[in-house]
Amino acid sequence: MAKGLPTRKEDYSTWYNELVKQADLAENSDVRGCMVIKPYGFAIWEKIQAVLDQKFKDTGHKNAYFPLFIPKSYLSREANHVEGFAKECAVVTHHRLKVDPDTGGVIVDPEAKLEEELIVRPTSETIIWNTYRKWVQSYRDLPILVNQWANVVRWEMRTRMFLRTTEFLWQEGHTAHATSDEAVAETKLMLDVYADFAENYMAMPVIKGVKTESERFAGAVDTFCIEALMQDGKALQAGTSHFLGQNFAKVFDVKFSDNDNKLEYVWGTSWGVSTRLMGGLIMTHSDDDGLVLPPALAPIQVVAVPIHRNDEQLTAISEKIEGLGKQLKEQGIAFEYDKRTTHKPGWKFAEYELKGVPIRIAIGPRDLENGTVEIARRDTKEKQTVNFDDLAAFIPKLLDEIQENIYNKAKTYRDEHITKVDSYDEMKDVLENKGGFVLAHWDGTTETEEKIQEELKATIRCIPLDNTLEDGKCIYTGKPSTQRVVFAKSY
Amino acid sequence: MAKGLPTRKEDYSTWYNELVKQADLAENSDVRGCMVIKPYGFAIWEKIQAVLDQKFKDTGHKNAYFPLFIPKSYLSREANHVEGFAKECAVVTHHRLKVDPDTGGVIVDPEAKLEEELIVRPTSETIIWNTYRKWVQSYRDLPILVNQWANVVRWEMRTRMFLRTTEFLWQEGHTAHATSDEAVAETKLMLDVYADFAENYMAMPVIKGVKTESERFAGAVDTFCIEALMQDGKALQAGTSHFLGQNFAKVFDVKFSDNDNKLEYVWGTSWGVSTRLMGGLIMTHSDDDGLVLPPALAPIQVVAVPIHRNDEQLTAISEKIEGLGKQLKEQGIAFEYDKRTTHKPGWKFAEYELKGVPIRIAIGPRDLENGTVEIARRDTKEKQTVNFDDLAAFIPKLLDEIQENIYNKAKTYRDEHITKVDSYDEMKDVLENKGGFVLAHWDGTTETEEKIQEELKATIRCIPLDNTLEDGKCIYTGKPSTQRVVFAKSY
Repeated sequence: MAKGLPTRKEDYSTWYNELVKQADLAENSDVRGCMVIKPYGFAIWEKIQAVLDQKFKDTGHKNAYFPLFIPKSYLSREANHVEGFAKECAVVTHHRLKVDPDTGGVIVDPEAKLEEELIVRPTSETIIWNTYRKWVQSYRDLPILVNQWANVVRWEMRTRMFLRTTEFLWQEGHTAHATSDEAVAETKLMLDVYADFAENYMAMPVIKGVKTESERFAGAVDTFCIEALMQDGKALQAGTSHFLGQNFAKVFDVKFSDNDNKLEYVWGTSWGVSTRLMGGLIMTHSDDDGLVLPPALAPIQVVAVPIHRNDEQLTAISEKIEGLGKQLKEQGIAFEYDKRTTHKPGWKFAEYELKGVPIRIAIGPRDLENGTVEIARRDTKEKQTVNFDDLAAFIPKLLDEIQENIYNKAKTYRDEHITKVDSYDEMKDVLENKGGFVLAHWDGTTETEEKIQEELKATIRCIPLDNTLEDGKCIYTGKPSTQRVVFAKSY
Repeated sequence: MAKGLPTRKEDYSTWYNELVKQADLAENSDVRGCMVIKPYGFAIWEKIQAVLDQKFKDTGHKNAYFPLFIPKSYLSREANHVEGFAKECAVVTHHRLKVDPDTGGVIVDPEAKLEEELIVRPTSETIIWNTYRKWVQSYRDLPILVNQWANVVRWEMRTRMFLRTTEFLWQEGHTAHATSDEAVAETKLMLDVYADFAENYMAMPVIKGVKTESERFAGAVDTFCIEALMQDGKALQAGTSHFLGQNFAKVFDVKFSDNDNKLEYVWGTSWGVSTRLMGGLIMTHSDDDGLVLPPALAPIQVVAVPIHRNDEQLTAISEKIEGLGKQLKEQGIAFEYDKRTTHKPGWKFAEYELKGVPIRIAIGPRDLENGTVEIARRDTKEKQTVNFDDLAAFIPKLLDEIQENIYNKAKTYRDEHITKVDSYDEMKDVLENKGGFVLAHWDGTTETEEKIQEELKATIRCIPLDNTLEDGKCIYTGKPSTQRVVFAKSY
């Protein structure tokens, strides 16, 4: 059992924070709003990175790297962008420290003031489009399909590990195209990549949709998103893909000569997911005993724990288990054998439960006699006895089953928490008592959106892409509407 | 042929800068001293990362991530560290911008001044050891074997792409141990990992050694290094591994209770290589026609170019080549087939030569008739005709041969440029006219070292680890010495 993990019901927020710490995923650092991602947490992020990176490459993208610093003036070039990003950010004003002759302490050297302040990138559209100007002359130079894995900084006032931190890790794709159609297709392709990843690797069902104007990325023509539902009934925006139109091309003067030698502005997209996905992963599946990880992203998929009274027994068990381990690793399964004698089996069981390892194998002297092991699934907590010789075939199947099961469980929960409402009172009641996604008609105005947000603390998460059109009346103003949008409280 | 690449003899420095740009490896950004690593350059860095990361994991290390920002006061805690690192660095003083009501421009909000300035990490010992204090209680918590891949910033006055940039990418390993012996062993193990990587993947011979006191890492007890030799006779420090003793543990109060329940300070190491390796890779092998890449790190190992006069021929060639491509990819070979009709074969030949692709396959209609292709090696520029059916076996062997050949070539050059000298005049002459590593006796004092550096612009690169002891006299002072050290001009 976890030491002092409250139940989700008692205190969801503390449950999350404690789980992140106790499962060794991350901890707060002394630097305000910045976290330390610990090895176990980082191993999950590495798995996320590896899968996504392959998907980006499979869809024709290449990685590159652009500077951490952005000249202050760049941020003010795109009118909407300055509103959205030139606010809470880390500003570098000096480039030297010196020893204070009076106190012996270190102080900022006033003589090393930068002519133009540098901003630690909150996102890289500006510096990248400024670079693309040099890369693009003719249609032959297009498309540019580039991604970067990077750290970014947004000076958040209220932070929570993984979900909202001052510094976070992410990938940002930035593509340039000859036509609007091609850029829109890219935007949607990458949204599909994110949705596929969320559902098939994170086992986290998502709604694909488009943001309303007020929730749009600063500088985008359209922002597409995937929205997931957490176990407390709040939505999490898990990834976004932006169609930038020619906005950044115009601001940074990125033109190409087309087939007819006519100069045109380039069309752009950008898309990103971040370490925030870790928060979604944790909150989608985990329970009161700790993490539950989908096998597809678990750093340890199978752990074996020996139960023994003497060295002789341990040697006999180890021999068998190490053979099994080799077999499993050959199948690409992340297997670990924990034969530490510094910790008791019971301690280990609790530890791997807390850390969400999908399958635990326990093997004792009697198992050795019978040629069996005990298998415990993390997701259902079911235990069963399995013949040792069947394991190499049994384990990969069980991993698939667990992956499927936790997806189905999350999907059932999510589907049960999609509620159609046709009155404002009903919406209020659902948001307050049941939580989840609320499907309601809206008159399409920012004014109504803002009033609802003010009154109910809920926002329009998205207009679903697969929406069926239907006549209806705005839940707030009664004005005519042709489709329902997704409201929810959110992270 | 490269457009306007000077020969190495004419102007080595411009040759390097132009090569980096023309081969699409990197370019300078508008931010002083910060470069953009372009997709082709970054693909090489990704290969470097993948190999090293696996080596780190194979030696028991795990990745983690620590904050980009370091509180100013941390840097001044370790007396030597403050001297070494709290100088030229990026200082964050504010956390908000605002619109200037007078001009409409964006200005730093004076009200958003940080209480304590944050430094963009020049290296992470301080913040990591401050974190380790919380991770270590007993000997059971040791060793900590952690690495991070990160960006760091040192405000360099004179920058050159890859070799010395304000922001650069690197990995930094930070380990904590219960004993001095264990920490020393770790320091040397990682030095060996670096040397193995340099020689067997980069095909770059290195000398392993230990730094003199004045070249030691700020805060280390001992700094070990690998030193490579570039084609202009200058040395390049390619990687360092530091034994930190208990220095950082003492400053950040990191103690553990040992077997006997006695509190002891923890022993530490740190080690790193950076995008500087890219500079070494480029300068070790490349020639006046462009890059020469070792097959082990080449993003494209084999490229095939069709030569055709009509679509029918292209179709026939493509069918054969695509089949070959599949075979090669199955063998794990990075193969590319460039059948773009927007560029002529001659242009493509020059392009792949410039980009250092190890093997080029050309295939035309007559080859098709004869069942052959033309193979061109980038390293020797030799061409030969090979039967198509032999290619799947021939290519991997040739890649190995090229890898070996460029290593041997670099080693021959390096060995020819190691010169033993016994007089100061001779040393001066060698450094000025021949270049390379100079082995000379030194009296062991910083004073002598500094004088030689002042007079000859050469530094002691290292004291080789495999040194044989011999009686001699310091080249400068004539005082007794027991071993030769390596002098060189350096990057």
